[in-house]
Amino acid sequence: MVIVLKDQATEQQVAELMDWLHTFDVKTNLVTGVHSRIIGLIGDTTSVDIDAVRAKAIVETVKRVQEPYKNANRRFHPDDTVIEVGGRKIGGGSLSVIAGPCSVETEDQLMRTAIAVKEAGADFLRGGAFKPRTSPYAFQGLGKEGIDLLLKARKETGLPIVTEIMDLSDLDLFADVDVVQVGARNMQNFTLLKALGRCDKPVLLKRGLSATLQELLMSAEYIMSEGNSKVILCERGIRTYEPETRNTLDISAVPLLRQKTHLPIVIDPSHATGINSLVEPMSLVAVAAGADALEIEVHIDPKNAWSDGAQSLTPEQFAAAMKRIRATEHFFHDELNAEG
Amino acid sequence: MVIVLKDQATEQQVAELMDWLHTFDVKTNLVTGVHSRIIGLIGDTTSVDIDAVRAKAIVETVKRVQEPYKNANRRFHPDDTVIEVGGRKIGGGSLSVIAGPCSVETEDQLMRTAIAVKEAGADFLRGGAFKPRTSPYAFQGLGKEGIDLLLKARKETGLPIVTEIMDLSDLDLFADVDVVQVGARNMQNFTLLKALGRCDKPVLLKRGLSATLQELLMSAEYIMSEGNSKVILCERGIRTYEPETRNTLDISAVPLLRQKTHLPIVIDPSHATGINSLVEPMSLVAVAAGADALEIEVHIDPKNAWSDGAQSLTPEQFAAAMKRIRATEHFFHDELNAEG
Amino acid sequence: MVIVLKDQATEQQVAELMDWLHTFDVKTNLVTGVHSRIIGLIGDTTSVDIDAVRAKAIVETVKRVQEPYKNANRRFHPDDTVIEVGGRKIGGGSLSVIAGPCSVETEDQLMRTAIAVKEAGADFLRGGAFKPRTSPYAFQGLGKEGIDLLLKARKETGLPIVTEIMDLSDLDLFADVDVVQVGARNMQNFTLLKALGRCDKPVLLKRGLSATLQELLMSAEYIMSEGNSKVILCERGIRTYEPETRNTLDISAVPLLRQKTHLPIVIDPSHATGINSLVEPMSLVAVAAGADALEIEVHIDPKNAWSDGAQSLTPEQFAAAMKRIRATEHFFHDELNAEG
Amino acid sequence: MVIVLKDQATEQQVAELMDWLHTFDVKTNLVTGVHSRIIGLIGDTTSVDIDAVRAKAIVETVKRVQEPYKNANRRFHPDDTVIEVGGRKIGGGSLSVIAGPCSVETEDQLMRTAIAVKEAGADFLRGGAFKPRTSPYAFQGLGKEGIDLLLKARKETGLPIVTEIMDLSDLDLFADVDVVQVGARNMQNFTLLKALGRCDKPVLLKRGLSATLQELLMSAEYIMSEGNSKVILCERGIRTYEPETRNTLDISAVPLLRQKTHLPIVIDPSHATGINSLVEPMSLVAVAAGADALEIEVHIDPKNAWSDGAQSLTPEQFAAAMKRIRATEHFFHDELNAEG
Repeated sequence: MVIVLKDQATEQQVAELMDWLHTFDVKTNLVTGVHSRIIGLIGDTTSVDIDAVRAKAIVETVKRVQEPYKNANRRFHPDDTVIEVGGRKIGGGSLSVIAGPCSVETEDQLMRTAIAVKEAGADFLRGGAFKPRTSPYAFQGLGKEGIDLLLKARKETGLPIVTEIMDLSDLDLFADVDVVQVGARNMQNFTLLKALGRCDKPVLLKRGLSATLQELLMSAEYIMSEGNSKVILCERGIRTYEPETRNTLDISAVPLLRQKTHLPIVIDPSHATGINSLVEPMSLVAVAAGADALEIEVHIDPKNAWSDGAQSLTPEQFAAAMKRIRATEHFFHDELNAEG
Repeated sequence: MVIVLKDQATEQQVAELMDWLHTFDVKTNLVTGVHSRIIGLIGDTTSVDIDAVRAKAIVETVKRVQEPYKNANRRFHPDDTVIEVGGRKIGGGSLSVIAGPCSVETEDQLMRTAIAVKEAGADFLRGGAFKPRTSPYAFQGLGKEGIDLLLKARKETGLPIVTEIMDLSDLDLFADVDVVQVGARNMQNFTLLKALGRCDKPVLLKRGLSATLQELLMSAEYIMSEGNSKVILCERGIRTYEPETRNTLDISAVPLLRQKTHLPIVIDPSHATGINSLVEPMSLVAVAAGADALEIEVHIDPKNAWSDGAQSLTPEQFAAAMKRIRATEHFFHDELNAEG
Repeated sequence: MVIVLKDQATEQQVAELMDWLHTFDVKTNLVTGVHSRIIGLIGDTTSVDIDAVRAKAIVETVKRVQEPYKNANRRFHPDDTVIEVGGRKIGGGSLSVIAGPCSVETEDQLMRTAIAVKEAGADFLRGGAFKPRTSPYAFQGLGKEGIDLLLKARKETGLPIVTEIMDLSDLDLFADVDVVQVGARNMQNFTLLKALGRCDKPVLLKRGLSATLQELLMSAEYIMSEGNSKVILCERGIRTYEPETRNTLDISAVPLLRQKTHLPIVIDPSHATGINSLVEPMSLVAVAAGADALEIEVHIDPKNAWSDGAQSLTPEQFAAAMKRIRATEHFFHDELNAEG
Repeated sequence: MVIVLKDQATEQQVAELMDWLHTFDVKTNLVTGVHSRIIGLIGDTTSVDIDAVRAKAIVETVKRVQEPYKNANRRFHPDDTVIEVGGRKIGGGSLSVIAGPCSVETEDQLMRTAIAVKEAGADFLRGGAFKPRTSPYAFQGLGKEGIDLLLKARKETGLPIVTEIMDLSDLDLFADVDVVQVGARNMQNFTLLKALGRCDKPVLLKRGLSATLQELLMSAEYIMSEGNSKVILCERGIRTYEPETRNTLDISAVPLLRQKTHLPIVIDPSHATGINSLVEPMSLVAVAAGADALEIEVHIDPKNAWSDGAQSLTPEQFAAAMKRIRATEHFFHDELNAEG
């Protein structure tokens, strides 16, 4: 952390600031120039609140040099995290595909979709039982019944299930769920994150609509600092001024996160674009970028889906996309690296 | 709602779509032109899910004409909502000022601040007991103890208290709180909103970091549709590309929301800017825009505040600002209108 | 400027970097800590290209402490710049109102509008002769004929004229224009800015659609560094994700720019909102924020305007708004300060 | 175009509006419902100014159904445009690589870079002679001398050259240039676009920092409507709130533009990210998305580059990247499609 002091700071004020900084167990270096004085902080600055430093009367500006997260930081954990769940792995070189309907609607809808995505080669089944909807008048999900149907579909197909938790009070219902998803709107629901940090269960954490990558990593840190290191990060598009797509897929997040963290990275091309015809192209792009997994919405009858129909693939479209996704995975994971 | 159909839609497909639309209790008008067909929906379209319409195979594009909210809509409730709490009013022509520290830190800090803001003319005391912080290593608030201190400060000063709820599981602790605040990061925590909709307590709902005004009104609708009509909307700055300010205050939201809704509107100049020296100017601007209330952070010692010190006013700064705020209120509420 | 070095930098590399930095006539201070080394630059760093520093192999991160602009910087020119033109002043305590149609359409339209805005108390007449339109099929302005009509209207009313230049090749046509406007889309047309820097004519420089305040000031610096110090800055709304308004008025730009620069500041409430009914409220807000001038679109028949009709005021609406604008000016400039 | 009328519109007002609409040579259909009336426009609505419609007193809201561009529209030109220049093609199935330094600095720098990129397999040489720089104190380019050096490098290597024009007044200097680039800051410099529309020379048009895809296509339409159909579109990252990257690469723009237009599409991974280590990953991603070309910054000594060093590849990095780019091209263009 580098702190630039205001010109008018007195020696006593500077000394007080240094004393305060030393309470955080860091070392300080004061550089005195003609027009400005700078304090460099050395050591673990994670616990130094940058806002508190900024608030000091004699501080002109502050800049962090080290990242404010530890558990999620590749610097301290050089090896990729691989998360094993239900005999499948996320991270560590292979590509996982999570597929299924936006919402669990009926047993017939879910079972048929589950069987279809399994046949097409999906590794995990997704489906929403609790649905965060902008309007209170829209379908809100089946709740507990939806989770029961997902568990039934897992029994039928063997696919581990991924489903979203919307509130801490529902946590007990997720006891048998394989991967708990935290939606974009809950990325900074810190109470929920801490509670999930005390579970021994993989968490798929979606980036908030306008969250920075550092904020995403800090939310992962909330979960990890409570003891649960099984966090999967998900880029699902960010909010920008562009109206053609539902969100803007920030694809450079994949190699950037790869540099900064050891956690697995998922791309959700369905929410990132909101447009059926862009799901496959953005899936291939995600593989090219090095994503560890894809989360894709599939519905047996998108035009009658109870939510997100416009971005859902039919089972046929998904099966066709999977062939191209797997071929692309093979190219990037095996051929291209072999050549290099 | 206006639905434009794709060129290739068959007559049977159009008939099926019309049948489906009629299940929502709306009337339809089909216009057939040379190159395009358009369906106009007439009646209450609130319950028609625009995403579901968009998902239909033969739909080219859809546009809502009516707003998708009812309870919050000025069209159906022309008179301004005035919320009475602890003998004070928010909305209806007067300006309320909510002031206090970002976080409740100690009894001494809170009591001194509470007395100071009361003397300066504040109407409500704010203070955070549960703090949503980006970092798990930053101060997280005093929790229940913080609420107890707020209640004590209310007893001492008579000021009703406003404090933030972060999770539904804490709801019982808010039984004696006057106004429950929902923070920007929880604006779309729909489970929490619904639960607050079943309380008989005013809710101060902050706009999300990148929420549209329509999404803010839909979140208000979540609370109101459960029976609680005491919702206060708060603009606290939105996330943009501009780095100089913490957020960008969207001041035109005040007259725009005024047109669309009957609910009271608060401006939070502290979070909107993040800069101490901009708090007073933006407070005057908010009064000029017609805001019903201001929420301002005040701390007895900002440079040692445990959170948000850089944007907090000292009691002296607040007292000076209040004189100018009240003079501005008097000008806009009394003089200017009298002239007109 | 503060430069943080990478851990692995060798002593020789650091020495080379220091040598290179010294070629810019600045002094350096190297701080060596346990885990990091920091170089502080002291002196005038305006000519040090931050991108060039960032490109050095051993540089981890760089932060500017001083602003990269000199001529526009209040630090070096503490007194407000006041620009006199045609017997009127912009800046220095009074409020100027620039009003007129978006486009000059016909002699009748312009003359009637000019007379109307003069009667209502406007200080300057605006009107577009060269129109930057998104579509090549939309009305592109009358060109030279438009400027001739503006000069005629000036003769008739005595109001100095403000009109936009779209390309350097038209510069000769602006010889008799009082204030040359540079539109948002040209804010970083550096060739044009430099050429205007060599004219002795006030330039009204509009902030780009997604320009930062620092970029706006750097564009002013382009004009000023060529010798023309008569620059007027204009905030006209920035592009955000919010769809209700054409742009989002960044009102905190007024006090922020006031701190950073001595140049006058104009608010354009018409383009900032795009909505007729928000123009007056945002004008009052701009006065409350301390703007030096307003630029308002007025049209004798908005519903038949050839451009921007939806945001134009009728002469009657403008006259009513002017009464309230002048009363607000009086309050903020005279009464409020007298009290304080 | 669909026009929704206000409730209170009188029959005479509606008739007048219809008459006015008919002057644009379009047909109208009026639908009268219980609560609302809607006018559907049929025919070529390109020349109907949506802003003018919106300004009409009785219009509640308007929505375009057809795109407002014709020449750039795939609907009217189903076949991909292929642009031939100097014996090379852009568009039509192969991948072109444009490479070279951000700025032309010296003869030695340019020649060595040109030879290096040619050897690595680049198809075009890029280099800036006129540089749009945020600061007037930064290197502004060599101007005419830079273009002369580029022509010399073309003679030496046979690579056609791509270089940016900043102002119309320099157009004569571009007579021998192969592809004229219009930078992001000039995307809506309409005077320049029209002038380039009257040249018989390919134009590489970069998307503005916060331009929508529709605005990009409208700027292409400016060029094309003047007669020059050789327009190449370039996505180079858009401005968002995310600070880690210089811009955010909007990769879904590639398949979206492919649907909407027949023009070739280039990705500039250097400006999109601003980070050396992300250039190769984003190049592979661009190939996976189906881009027709890449524009990559290469410098013989990035750490001493006069501009954009942090995002430039060394010749060695570029050569290594090119192997992987060509292998990826081969996979996507030949193998993957062959399988399907």
